[in-house]
Amino acid sequence: MTRLTVLFLGDSFVAGVGDPTALGWTGRLLAAAHHPDRDLTGYVLGVRRQTSDDVLARWEREADVRLPGVGTGAVVVSFGVNDAIVEDGRRRVPEERTVENLRTLVNQARARDLAVLVVGPPPVADDDVTARVVALDARLGATAAALDVPYVGTVGALRDDPVWHAEVDAGDGAHPGAAGYERLAALVRPAWDVVVDGLA
Amino acid sequence: MTRLTVLFLGDSFVAGVGDPTALGWTGRLLAAAHHPDRDLTGYVLGVRRQTSDDVLARWEREADVRLPGVGTGAVVVSFGVNDAIVEDGRRRVPEERTVENLRTLVNQARARDLAVLVVGPPPVADDDVTARVVALDARLGATAAALDVPYVGTVGALRDDPVWHAEVDAGDGAHPGAAGYERLAALVRPAWDVVVDGLA
Repeated sequence: MTRLTVLFLGDSFVAGVGDPTALGWTGRLLAAAHHPDRDLTGYVLGVRRQTSDDVLARWEREADVRLPGVGTGAVVVSFGVNDAIVEDGRRRVPEERTVENLRTLVNQARARDLAVLVVGPPPVADDDVTARVVALDARLGATAAALDVPYVGTVGALRDDPVWHAEVDAGDGAHPGAAGYERLAALVRPAWDVVVDGLA
Repeated sequence: MTRLTVLFLGDSFVAGVGDPTALGWTGRLLAAAHHPDRDLTGYVLGVRRQTSDDVLARWEREADVRLPGVGTGAVVVSFGVNDAIVEDGRRRVPEERTVENLRTLVNQARARDLAVLVVGPPPVADDDVTARVVALDARLGATAAALDVPYVGTVGALRDDPVWHAEVDAGDGAHPGAAGYERLAALVRPAWDVVVDGLA
């Protein structure tokens, strides 16, 4: 049986913060991909507050101790909301650098023979942040297309999703609950299925 | 609301390998601890094939990018099965060194003001390995007691558990399925509840 290893990289949304089921969108995708004839291991490496700079700084080291050296692997990466947040009057990561970070990460993943799936940043309660996320989503999608890697935008679908917003508003203003993460997982699911089938 | 951060360190059992629900025992504990008035973030940092040597070599770096610098935190650590496996005629990690690694890790965790919970290694299908796990479990339990950290043995209860063994035998000979992980989570739950209550 081929060993399949998937690394989920990113921020608190990747970590599933706020989900009472502890699955987040990543756990839902891993459960959906489970099959007795498939030896799939998923590592969820989202970290709260992390920008694309932060993810880029750590991901290779964390990946290299997890990649078994046999079988096939993939990286599912999602960042951008923290990049788009303004703190002390400054945007944490300028849009251009977020885009450059994605390019770098995709190239580093390819150097390890890893398939790549990019998941765009979701909306939050703060309309100014969400507006910057919308702009960033367009840039990230175009960058992924230029690099020929699949991209799943989420802000477009979730911006008008009452379930997402009700949970975000009832929570901490950024993270949804179980139903919101289920929506996010459903958006990613078709592209995820393609990635997993491609690994087998 | 106090920020609580829990790091789960260890091997494939910590990673939840084989669980079709993708929760493993760690996700079950995190879900059990979820509460709207509790800002709890769990990071599951189990890695397949890793021994206590391997965990010791990486955990501080991975912890330091995840600990937010505010609130309180804990480490839940579980290793030992891979240490007890013989490869090419050699035990991967001698019992004495596994014990020493636990001591070192507990001291490193305390230096970071992290609470510690130690979960003992579970049984596998191979009786020789399980016999070594039983011996190691006794040493780890005594070490934890000497260090005054809580220890939950699992091999004693799971060795005679038909649900655990049925799933391990139906799987890869090491990892259970959902019901087995549920049993493991149930064994850890009382000590886990004490740790979480202590963080709040």
